[in-house]
Amino acid sequence: MTLPPTFSVSPVDRRLQAELQQKIDTKTKPLGALGKLENLALKIGLIQQALQPTLNRPVILVFAGDHGIVAEGVSPFPQAVTQQMVLNFLTGGAAINVFSRQHEIVLRVVDAGVAADFPPHPQLVNAKVAYGSANFLKQPALTQAQCASALNKGAELARVELAAGSNVLGFGEMGIGNTTSAAALMSVLCRLPVSLCAGRGTGLNDAGLTHKISVIEQAIAFHKVNAASPFEVLSTFGGLEIAMMTGAMLAAAEARAVLLVDGFIASAALLVAARMQPAVLDYCVFSHRSGEAGHLRLLEKLNADPLLDLGMRLGEGTGCAVVWPLLQSAVAFLNEMASFESAGVSNKSA
Amino acid sequence: MTLPPTFSVSPVDRRLQAELQQKIDTKTKPLGALGKLENLALKIGLIQQALQPTLNRPVILVFAGDHGIVAEGVSPFPQAVTQQMVLNFLTGGAAINVFSRQHEIVLRVVDAGVAADFPPHPQLVNAKVAYGSANFLKQPALTQAQCASALNKGAELARVELAAGSNVLGFGEMGIGNTTSAAALMSVLCRLPVSLCAGRGTGLNDAGLTHKISVIEQAIAFHKVNAASPFEVLSTFGGLEIAMMTGAMLAAAEARAVLLVDGFIASAALLVAARMQPAVLDYCVFSHRSGEAGHLRLLEKLNADPLLDLGMRLGEGTGCAVVWPLLQSAVAFLNEMASFESAGVSNKSA
Repeated sequence: MTLPPTFSVSPVDRRLQAELQQKIDTKTKPLGALGKLENLALKIGLIQQALQPTLNRPVILVFAGDHGIVAEGVSPFPQAVTQQMVLNFLTGGAAINVFSRQHEIVLRVVDAGVAADFPPHPQLVNAKVAYGSANFLKQPALTQAQCASALNKGAELARVELAAGSNVLGFGEMGIGNTTSAAALMSVLCRLPVSLCAGRGTGLNDAGLTHKISVIEQAIAFHKVNAASPFEVLSTFGGLEIAMMTGAMLAAAEARAVLLVDGFIASAALLVAARMQPAVLDYCVFSHRSGEAGHLRLLEKLNADPLLDLGMRLGEGTGCAVVWPLLQSAVAFLNEMASFESAGVSNKSA
Repeated sequence: MTLPPTFSVSPVDRRLQAELQQKIDTKTKPLGALGKLENLALKIGLIQQALQPTLNRPVILVFAGDHGIVAEGVSPFPQAVTQQMVLNFLTGGAAINVFSRQHEIVLRVVDAGVAADFPPHPQLVNAKVAYGSANFLKQPALTQAQCASALNKGAELARVELAAGSNVLGFGEMGIGNTTSAAALMSVLCRLPVSLCAGRGTGLNDAGLTHKISVIEQAIAFHKVNAASPFEVLSTFGGLEIAMMTGAMLAAAEARAVLLVDGFIASAALLVAARMQPAVLDYCVFSHRSGEAGHLRLLEKLNADPLLDLGMRLGEGTGCAVVWPLLQSAVAFLNEMASFESAGVSNKSA
């Protein structure tokens, strides 16, 4: 049996909380009037253990992988779209390119396991573990060695970006079929019926959704995995891009970076990470509530309250990119706003 | 009787809608997967009658004014805070300064009717109509001449910014007591009980809120205004910053600019504008759902679906500023994303 890599994520030290809250509360505004931006400033301050936090060199890692389960007809798009979209990322035409450019976010496209080869490209990281996962209706999606390798490579990629000066990492993905993997992971790890976890993905109709649910239910019944072992669950239903994202998240949290979590798939990768190291959640900023059906409930399980609710359901890390300016706003108000005292503004009467 | 200025806002021409929707739908993403950003791109394209809209020189106008109704104890902050916060705006220490700087939004602070004089400052526009409104528990807040003047000056200010090259105007405010005016306007114009319109403002406790509601109810009973005359209602419960904002909104919509609407007060100003010229709503992007109690219902009355819901309730145009990058994202995806055809990506199977 292959052992998964080990991570050690420490809970955030909350001793600075009172001082941060005091700083927030004396800014020239009614108490609490910046709403979730105040919670966000507090969270980032605690993660960085700083009264004047800074956000440096934001990066979005987009992990791409193919899924053997697509052979069961769980997606309305053909598998080739994973490869095609990676090429679209590399030529700058996808939504994540547009939004990353807009916000000057470094974009890394990671081939975690696409069923095709790519020419070298400065934005492409070749971390391919295999040409896609196996069909988990018939066998585990990943061997334990593949799963461990994906976790390790993800961790390594995160560490490279942190070493380059980043302290915020966003996590996105591309992989036709990966809502099926994510729904299976969620169903098993949260012990929820598949029907509450699976959604329409890229656009299944009612019959397609019913079929997808049935495929996942059959697969779960077939494998009888030990739900208490996140590594076994991940290997079984995995998806190389999901496993690699899980590893990257754990390494980023281990290094006390801010983690920007995208939509349904990224949340499923985080769910696995949190079952391995619960403190990873201390480092997460949830970007948006996806339109994908299972996401709302998955967010509840993660005790997450995303900043945005725009009905987006695209993946690619697009939620991380569009939410990014709100992180900047949170840090900016904390660092730049005047206090009642410094501005000579009268505070509320007692 | 003073006649209000007249405006003529044309409904948006929707003939371009099908072509814009087609452009959105052929981008490399599942149909509808960018959620509200897609509606926003469509809206901006229609306002500008352009398949490639552009957003130029965004401006936020922050209108400041004082309110005679403050004498009735409707705010936990003293009236002097209006003046103090204007000075805070001018020295760059308020939340709206921080967020405007972050996004390179032009910020104009407009003295519509603060009960104090200010030294000249490049960011300050002196459009003072009076040193605050009258106490509307005892007399109309504004004379009809003052109200007409505020509408006219607001329109003029908007036109100055449009002439300088702006095609997006955001509207914010500062005025201790102005949630009381806004709640009165909403109650009368929407024919809703005051208790559904008034909220805690800058932080009233339960007793303070009960008192505020009672003051507004007494004032409404006292004046017996004609709810079918938005000008009369505005004059009676007014607020110079609200009236000036209403004028600015109408002039901006008349010129087919994009209007960025902030929170509760700005929505109340817009409500008045919409009763004068219903087509003004065609030009509005609603930035956020304020934490102020009446805002949700007011948004329903305006058939508005704001982009953000961050629990903010600060005013100053802060919602306009933090939502601004989403407008840029909407325009950017429309203009820059590849189509399935141009990127060689397979579309969904039929």
